[in-house]
Amino acid sequence: MAAPALDFWFDFASTYSYLAAMRIAPLAEEASVRVRFRPFLLGAIFKAQGWTTSPFNLYPAKGRNMWRDLERSCADLRLPFRRPDHFPQNSLLAARVALVALDQAWGEEFCRTLFRAEFAHGRRIDDAAVLADVLAKLDVDSEPVLAAAQSDAIKARLRAQTEEAQRLGVFGAPSFTTADGELFWGNDRLEPALRWAAAERS
Amino acid sequence: MAAPALDFWFDFASTYSYLAAMRIAPLAEEASVRVRFRPFLLGAIFKAQGWTTSPFNLYPAKGRNMWRDLERSCADLRLPFRRPDHFPQNSLLAARVALVALDQAWGEEFCRTLFRAEFAHGRRIDDAAVLADVLAKLDVDSEPVLAAAQSDAIKARLRAQTEEAQRLGVFGAPSFTTADGELFWGNDRLEPALRWAAAERS
Repeated sequence: MAAPALDFWFDFASTYSYLAAMRIAPLAEEASVRVRFRPFLLGAIFKAQGWTTSPFNLYPAKGRNMWRDLERSCADLRLPFRRPDHFPQNSLLAARVALVALDQAWGEEFCRTLFRAEFAHGRRIDDAAVLADVLAKLDVDSEPVLAAAQSDAIKARLRAQTEEAQRLGVFGAPSFTTADGELFWGNDRLEPALRWAAAERS
Repeated sequence: MAAPALDFWFDFASTYSYLAAMRIAPLAEEASVRVRFRPFLLGAIFKAQGWTTSPFNLYPAKGRNMWRDLERSCADLRLPFRRPDHFPQNSLLAARVALVALDQAWGEEFCRTLFRAEFAHGRRIDDAAVLADVLAKLDVDSEPVLAAAQSDAIKARLRAQTEEAQRLGVFGAPSFTTADGELFWGNDRLEPALRWAAAERS
């Protein structure tokens, strides 16, 4: 029997996706749950409900609290944190590169390294040079990866993946979905989502 | 030295305030943190940011997830749950009665019993008969309490308390604030808020 599976939906622009991406691997291993990394574009889903930017920008009190909460949470988790100058960043290129990366053994490490570049070092993720840098850190030749990321096939896959997220009811990031149709939203729901997936009998 | 203090801001209309209200007393005792129950009107704060109802109603995907998440969370916590027919309920009278109650020894028990009436039994909280019923469960003579709740003094106190919440940056319920100015939002932040309050040196 295959290990129970959990889909991990994230957007590279999302602050709490950083926390979940850094936490998920050891917790999933402990719970014997197979996790699939699924980058998508939250901005497209926000647009569909009438938002042109992050609710953290639309509602300043909520935004102030998010940054402070993130700082406190990173301190608790002993994760480095540096607030990028711009938020939310355009994550289109990052998500496309991640789709190429996740077909390879080093895909999840790429995602973590890119999240760290953004939220631990405050770097831009819409800049091909930064993405090349992250790939170089993993000893990956960046040129063919960046070229593949701009292929029609990958563009279509990212669109399809974002549409699938929306169909599953995803309205924020990170989110977690199980084979039996449960949706868990937020870094705070990572543990309950893993418990649910582990308890599934198929 | 007085025990460290934490203000617990809640609205009787708020689903996650139910969870926090049912959890806070034993956790606070364990952490040796003195908690002050502070009912306020979240609707007034929502109005100030342009919302005429709960974001759970404004954004259907978010709302669907909230009800399912609440159901799962109540099951995990072994708390009874029954979804009321109407959401959010008008919590004005309930908050006024709570202010009267919280001047008495049985105030916190009143709050828990009212939350249970609403979210475990699906009852209305804008109905004076339901409030009288809850008071009767606590062996309290309801007539003078309901009369006091409609006094100018209590009306003014609730307005002032809601304004104070807004001044402190509260934008949702439940929230927790510390003497040194930290704001924690959400039932998920109850434990970190208690840890912060316990670590405060004054």
